[in-house]
Amino acid sequence: MEQRVSIVTLGVASLDRSRQFYERLGWRRAMRKAEGIVFFQAGCMALALYPRRELAKDAQLSPEGTGFCGLALAYNARSCQEVDKVLAEAQAAGALLLKPAQEAFWGGYSGYFSDPDGFPWEVAWNPGFPIAADGSIRLPD
Amino acid sequence: MEQRVSIVTLGVASLDRSRQFYERLGWRRAMRKAEGIVFFQAGCMALALYPRRELAKDAQLSPEGTGFCGLALAYNARSCQEVDKVLAEAQAAGALLLKPAQEAFWGGYSGYFSDPDGFPWEVAWNPGFPIAADGSIRLPD
Repeated sequence: MEQRVSIVTLGVASLDRSRQFYERLGWRRAMRKAEGIVFFQAGCMALALYPRRELAKDAQLSPEGTGFCGLALAYNARSCQEVDKVLAEAQAAGALLLKPAQEAFWGGYSGYFSDPDGFPWEVAWNPGFPIAADGSIRLPD
Repeated sequence: MEQRVSIVTLGVASLDRSRQFYERLGWRRAMRKAEGIVFFQAGCMALALYPRRELAKDAQLSPEGTGFCGLALAYNARSCQEVDKVLAEAQAAGALLLKPAQEAFWGGYSGYFSDPDGFPWEVAWNPGFPIAADGSIRLPD
């Protein structure tokens, strides 16, 4: 197994509501003709939105589940100023601010919002993780 | 907000157990000196493992939560044969096979496993999503 992730698929309650949220963040769909699923190119990978019940069914899992989803997505910003800007954009797009941006114990600057289905996104400036022009990050050894 | 994801952080019950699982899949850590967190370079982004309670605390969320996490990660393979191989490798590494590989309604070939914390991974061959040599995917318009 190569060391990579191709797609993160978020199971959503309403495809339209979630699509509109990410579009308000400025994201633009790929494969606009695809029906019943929404794809966004997200750097070198894809972020997909798919109805939660159908995602569970596809994985042969029960769709039941409540509370913390157990993970977080992170958007690494290029500066502290960009962290503030992205958190403000997310709130303007309808996100819930989970944690205002603040200095992090690991030396960066970070806050969290959650999307319409409650998926937490950390927005962080991490001086130890350089970001390339194309948005990719390369971890130090 | 640029259209990208920098890190997927999985909240795990046991950092050692989860690290060992991904290492058995052949993944190699970055930043090996980091304590209390495990980072893997995953294509152009990173996959991190972090204790679930601490992740919830960092996001100022309750750690309580049960059942379906509501999302899936996908690994797009380069062939049907690679789908079978990766699912076998995952099972040998201790994964639960959620769904044996089979022809998918959308024209590809796909199965699912779950990692030690129950995070579902789809392993799929999708003839419509070309994979570059570096593992990145580029969605068609």
